[in-house]
Amino acid sequence: MTAAEIQFDTDGNLHHFLTIEGLGRDTLLQILDMAESFIDVGHREIKKVPLLRGKTVVNLFFESSTRTRTTFELAAKRLSADVINLNPQRLSTSKGETVLDTVKNLEAMHTDLFVVRDSHSGAAFLVAQHVPPYVSIINGGDGRHEHPTQAMLDVFTIRQHRPDFQNLRVAIVGDILHSRVARSQIHALNILGAAEIRVIGPNTLLPTEVERLGVHVYNDMKLGLKDVDIVIMLRLQLERMQGSLIASAQEYFNLYGLTQDKLEYAKPDALVMHPGPINRGLEIASDVADGPNSVILSQVTNGIAVRMSVMAMLLGGQSTRRQD
Amino acid sequence: MTAAEIQFDTDGNLHHFLTIEGLGRDTLLQILDMAESFIDVGHREIKKVPLLRGKTVVNLFFESSTRTRTTFELAAKRLSADVINLNPQRLSTSKGETVLDTVKNLEAMHTDLFVVRDSHSGAAFLVAQHVPPYVSIINGGDGRHEHPTQAMLDVFTIRQHRPDFQNLRVAIVGDILHSRVARSQIHALNILGAAEIRVIGPNTLLPTEVERLGVHVYNDMKLGLKDVDIVIMLRLQLERMQGSLIASAQEYFNLYGLTQDKLEYAKPDALVMHPGPINRGLEIASDVADGPNSVILSQVTNGIAVRMSVMAMLLGGQSTRRQD
Amino acid sequence: MTAAEIQFDTDGNLHHFLTIEGLGRDTLLQILDMAESFIDVGHREIKKVPLLRGKTVVNLFFESSTRTRTTFELAAKRLSADVINLNPQRLSTSKGETVLDTVKNLEAMHTDLFVVRDSHSGAAFLVAQHVPPYVSIINGGDGRHEHPTQAMLDVFTIRQHRPDFQNLRVAIVGDILHSRVARSQIHALNILGAAEIRVIGPNTLLPTEVERLGVHVYNDMKLGLKDVDIVIMLRLQLERMQGSLIASAQEYFNLYGLTQDKLEYAKPDALVMHPGPINRGLEIASDVADGPNSVILSQVTNGIAVRMSVMAMLLGGQSTRRQD
Repeated sequence: MTAAEIQFDTDGNLHHFLTIEGLGRDTLLQILDMAESFIDVGHREIKKVPLLRGKTVVNLFFESSTRTRTTFELAAKRLSADVINLNPQRLSTSKGETVLDTVKNLEAMHTDLFVVRDSHSGAAFLVAQHVPPYVSIINGGDGRHEHPTQAMLDVFTIRQHRPDFQNLRVAIVGDILHSRVARSQIHALNILGAAEIRVIGPNTLLPTEVERLGVHVYNDMKLGLKDVDIVIMLRLQLERMQGSLIASAQEYFNLYGLTQDKLEYAKPDALVMHPGPINRGLEIASDVADGPNSVILSQVTNGIAVRMSVMAMLLGGQSTRRQD
Repeated sequence: MTAAEIQFDTDGNLHHFLTIEGLGRDTLLQILDMAESFIDVGHREIKKVPLLRGKTVVNLFFESSTRTRTTFELAAKRLSADVINLNPQRLSTSKGETVLDTVKNLEAMHTDLFVVRDSHSGAAFLVAQHVPPYVSIINGGDGRHEHPTQAMLDVFTIRQHRPDFQNLRVAIVGDILHSRVARSQIHALNILGAAEIRVIGPNTLLPTEVERLGVHVYNDMKLGLKDVDIVIMLRLQLERMQGSLIASAQEYFNLYGLTQDKLEYAKPDALVMHPGPINRGLEIASDVADGPNSVILSQVTNGIAVRMSVMAMLLGGQSTRRQD
Repeated sequence: MTAAEIQFDTDGNLHHFLTIEGLGRDTLLQILDMAESFIDVGHREIKKVPLLRGKTVVNLFFESSTRTRTTFELAAKRLSADVINLNPQRLSTSKGETVLDTVKNLEAMHTDLFVVRDSHSGAAFLVAQHVPPYVSIINGGDGRHEHPTQAMLDVFTIRQHRPDFQNLRVAIVGDILHSRVARSQIHALNILGAAEIRVIGPNTLLPTEVERLGVHVYNDMKLGLKDVDIVIMLRLQLERMQGSLIASAQEYFNLYGLTQDKLEYAKPDALVMHPGPINRGLEIASDVADGPNSVILSQVTNGIAVRMSVMAMLLGGQSTRRQD
């Protein structure tokens, strides 16, 4: 089974959430629509719904990320689940043995859902292949592969402002090569029927044959931003920029940093997005990050609702499934 | 707005808790009276009240402290809030940018209350200036400035034994210079009308012009302790005692360590207090710390009730405030 | 009072859980029977019972162990308790002062139960001697002394498959010398009336006069495994194997590693057990760990129920006890 196939149980319900690639438009819309209903929860006096009461969610972050972990933790707690946070060391990855032993031990404790984050592509898929049918897996980011909940919160945020994807022109700017976020976004935007997706960056930061993902390639920022509705900036991880990938941070900012100047090539009401955390003055100027086009903080807010939606879909309907 | 002014919302209700300085007697008494009602909760079979159910409290400790964090965590959980513990690294403090980005992200997740602890004076105030009106801030200790919940639990403990502040003589002993605790205590005791506040220590550990805070200065421990009702010992942080601040730990204990001998200069029923954690044999002898005059562990117990009180006051009345 | 005596309150109810040694058969059976009733909770849609609602459980792990801590955390949360996880540094152990100060502070916060894990034998007992009567202590592993909840989950797992201990032959294999797990298991099996307990290992890893614990000693694995019903493998901690305790990891595996070959000397339906985490290829071959005789993951599942049982017994009946 592929990662896309394994995501559904025999009744056709979403059971794991590992990749955007291979999902249908209906599934994505279902997640977005349910997330809509959870947006309200964050505004209530009592920000709780009892949907996952008595369930145990494990944040299994082999690659640590306080910020992403916090959003999953809050989402689970607002659904009334119990949450366990773990940052295990990967002692042996040769056969994935240690990872799977860790998972098997946790699942023996009758945990219901794992959010798996790992620096290796395919980690969440590997775990999903080995858990019993009553355990669900969410991919919280796997290597350079996918970060599907991030992409869902991004398209959720876009839909809040631009409900009609068919006329939508989106530019994704920066280090596409290393970005699981970009990969998931491209799949989600294509599935939802965006009119055009552009990727903008130096050739050293673009995957070979990136066009096959269904995007147009630009090396020039101003040409690439021309008349787009959405500008998605990616985080540049300087520690990955060894060798000759970029000339310097300053040079990178000059060419690909989003400034008010460059933003003017996009549509006047273009949305500026970023998965965070932002590097001010590296991939984005502070005045743009905090400016009127920016919806960066809305993305964070929506991230809770989208993760609640995915968790509720995976666990909400499994009441009669566990028969061990 | 000053830190004192920003603490109140437009209806005059306490909205942040940043400093003791500048608060009125009524506000302090209101906190103490509500804390009184929470003392009982710690004795109940079920140590929970539902006041903050569905609220999210974030312990944002840039300066780590397991002990203080635990008291805030327990206070929040006994009020039925969800708690997130974070110990972020301060990557860039030049403009407070990273701190504020962290806070803005957390507040975008619809968190309700931040307990901010930081080694920089003014950190909690800085955060309070930048959060939207539906988010409250508690100063969990900022640099050498203030530690207001600690001072409130101290005066709460004093009031349990000596309800009448007007005849109260209090000595605070040790490193006043670096102590945010001492600063908050002095303000609280003055506001509540204590008859006399003395500070005792070597000149190297006293702020210049400390008298302007409304205290009497003593370099000699026995003279300073003469007939006081309350002896508050401060923790000596040896790692700060570089250079010539003190001659040696032994010399310090001889001159300023609280022993049974020196305690006899105070009133026979004088209370011995310490914010903890204590350094036995450095600023206080073990037999005094564990002796009949000591209320050090009562301070810890009261710390939960006082923090519950502050949290309930800040969040209890905001039901109609969030309109975003 | 000995550790065994201090475990009971004046009414004869279990109040601390520190050692298996010295407990009676009835107490062990009571724990096992109540654990039975909690097994079902892990299978429910809502894995919660309200028994410890409003109680505070502190995991006080001076020696860190994510895995054991997680099982206690899950057990407490499924009983609806609030949980605080602490990993304090041991600054001063000469007189146990720092440990006791930490405990006294936490108990002043009105916490109800401490799970104490420490690398020093007797640590949990030391703490139990100093807490007030309304605080209970569970030994989560102390030095080489005991790990009583582990032994209880082991005998629980054995009883699931072999309810009759009177005909039971058990072999414990490996580093008996350093193993608090083995020590607790031997006591539990003897108290429950197992027919024969064997320990198997090189003399360098056996305590002197180990026979006095009521076991038979074997240096040869095949002789030792002959016709046993239960094979309990111990984790080999290579970092402790300095000097000449074992020749090499390979040599150790050859002599004492559990392989399919060696397992054939035991009864055909012998249970293979291990407290985890397992070292595949060091003390146990992967195919045996994952094979049909292995109940290693059942041990993990049962560990939650057994810990819930102990917690419920210690705290369940104390409703009228706190009178401070």
